[in-house]
Amino acid sequence: MNPAAIGQAARIFRERYPHFIRRTPLMKLPGSALGVEAAEVWLKLEQLQTSGSFKARGMLYRLLSHPIPAAGVIVASGGNAGIATAAAARELGVHCEVFVPTVCSPAKQARLRELGAQVVVSGAVYAEALEACLARQQATGALLTHAYDQPEVVAGAGTLACEIEEQGGGAPDSVLVSVGGGGLVAGIAAWFEDRSRVIALEPELAPTLHRARQAGEPVDVAVGGIAADSLGAKRIGRLAWDIAERWVPQSLLLPDAAIRSAQLWLWQQMKLAVEPAAALPLAALQQGLYRPQPGEVVALVVCGANLDPASLA
Amino acid sequence: MNPAAIGQAARIFRERYPHFIRRTPLMKLPGSALGVEAAEVWLKLEQLQTSGSFKARGMLYRLLSHPIPAAGVIVASGGNAGIATAAAARELGVHCEVFVPTVCSPAKQARLRELGAQVVVSGAVYAEALEACLARQQATGALLTHAYDQPEVVAGAGTLACEIEEQGGGAPDSVLVSVGGGGLVAGIAAWFEDRSRVIALEPELAPTLHRARQAGEPVDVAVGGIAADSLGAKRIGRLAWDIAERWVPQSLLLPDAAIRSAQLWLWQQMKLAVEPAAALPLAALQQGLYRPQPGEVVALVVCGANLDPASLA
Repeated sequence: MNPAAIGQAARIFRERYPHFIRRTPLMKLPGSALGVEAAEVWLKLEQLQTSGSFKARGMLYRLLSHPIPAAGVIVASGGNAGIATAAAARELGVHCEVFVPTVCSPAKQARLRELGAQVVVSGAVYAEALEACLARQQATGALLTHAYDQPEVVAGAGTLACEIEEQGGGAPDSVLVSVGGGGLVAGIAAWFEDRSRVIALEPELAPTLHRARQAGEPVDVAVGGIAADSLGAKRIGRLAWDIAERWVPQSLLLPDAAIRSAQLWLWQQMKLAVEPAAALPLAALQQGLYRPQPGEVVALVVCGANLDPASLA
Repeated sequence: MNPAAIGQAARIFRERYPHFIRRTPLMKLPGSALGVEAAEVWLKLEQLQTSGSFKARGMLYRLLSHPIPAAGVIVASGGNAGIATAAAARELGVHCEVFVPTVCSPAKQARLRELGAQVVVSGAVYAEALEACLARQQATGALLTHAYDQPEVVAGAGTLACEIEEQGGGAPDSVLVSVGGGGLVAGIAAWFEDRSRVIALEPELAPTLHRARQAGEPVDVAVGGIAADSLGAKRIGRLAWDIAERWVPQSLLLPDAAIRSAQLWLWQQMKLAVEPAAALPLAALQQGLYRPQPGEVVALVVCGANLDPASLA
């Protein structure tokens, strides 16, 4: 993965899919507007992306990078990756099967069906849905999308960083971004390399990168807490691990209370309705866990908004 | 009111209050991304403004344009104008009294108190709260802010149009904007004059400009419906009337069902949480009430987000 591969993905999105992959806004504010010490804060409002999260970028690019068999595409996910795969499949007019466990809420299943996906409920937990999905993929030959650990998925996510640089008129000094399986941080770090300091943020209760660094390699982690819905991968992806080892100097952990507090702040003070995973970057600044240098320009990636709006009331 | 006066307000905001008056994003999309026929749609995301609506611009500018007496500032409003006045008063460190009727919800009263305002509950309906407010103003000499019918309030609102032009790299062909008392449409039309076609949109159930045009002058109107909370002025302002007569060729009416449908679309498809008043411009496009010419660039003003998020669930 390198900037040229990401730039190529960005070009394809811009030229052929401007109606599908949105150029989400970059909102620039003085740090004081957010009660933090940075000179400038750039909010990349990627929760306004098609499908409600950055994942539409990676899923569309995965689908564009392979011939799609008659059986269509297949994914195991009741969350953002499933929604994004269904949306991308609809955009390309191909069949899509989404495997979800029984814990997947009726509202999420309905959302997937609205997008034209065939929803298969299988197993009590995610691992069982995944097993059924893989067996089905073997039988049909459908193109499998993975939530984070495929090169095209990482390259697609990286186009977000390319936009930050174009919209900002240059690279920010630092970029704060949440990590679950690591597809997003990998794409961003692969774009900026050493031109911005990319800081990885994880919930204390879902520390995939943090534990991998302690162990010296990706390891399975017990995950839970307020952001598990979108940052609940059990293990950092192999691609993300390699890229983060090279380009991501810091990985910081946040308690759930700080994440929730930043999520509510974003709604009450900014009228941005975002899911908990999208609030980690602001939480890290507001809690002083990440302390910018004088004059620093910090970009925060606001990555998704798949939430029940009543949870903000 | 003229472009020079608005440009002066914009300069003061940019130079002295960048931490308070936010340069809200302009999101550009192909019309097809919204299912409408315009070549390009520009969404001015002004619901992300301080205080949750465009009104912060006008209220701050009103306060900056006059010496503020020891008694501070005073306003009668439980809605966006009250919140914006309280926020502007806090920014300047001056006392603020807000008069609201008993129908003003405890949540809104709490929000005003959080902003440091002294809340005075008086009368069963708005007209009675206003009467009490005016009597108090006579007694104390506090600076009164009006929700729409003061020149500084109109000039402040106009700075939003100035930003649209800067961010868009030129004036759009047309601008669609909601009308209650008319402060916002007046500011926008006074900025663009004949350089953009400014289209006024009103709920069928709150048609202040429409009825004024039928009568040949501002008249009182019965108001109600889904957007009455923010577009429920009884009569178009005198300033807005004069400016609209000169620069606003069309005034269109929308049924509540269309407004609600566009509000839900903005949440479900764009993850923009907005109040009903902010959804009229998209409703007019999606319903075909306003039909752009081939190649037209249409700007939609998304004016506020003071809503209970549970109402989107």
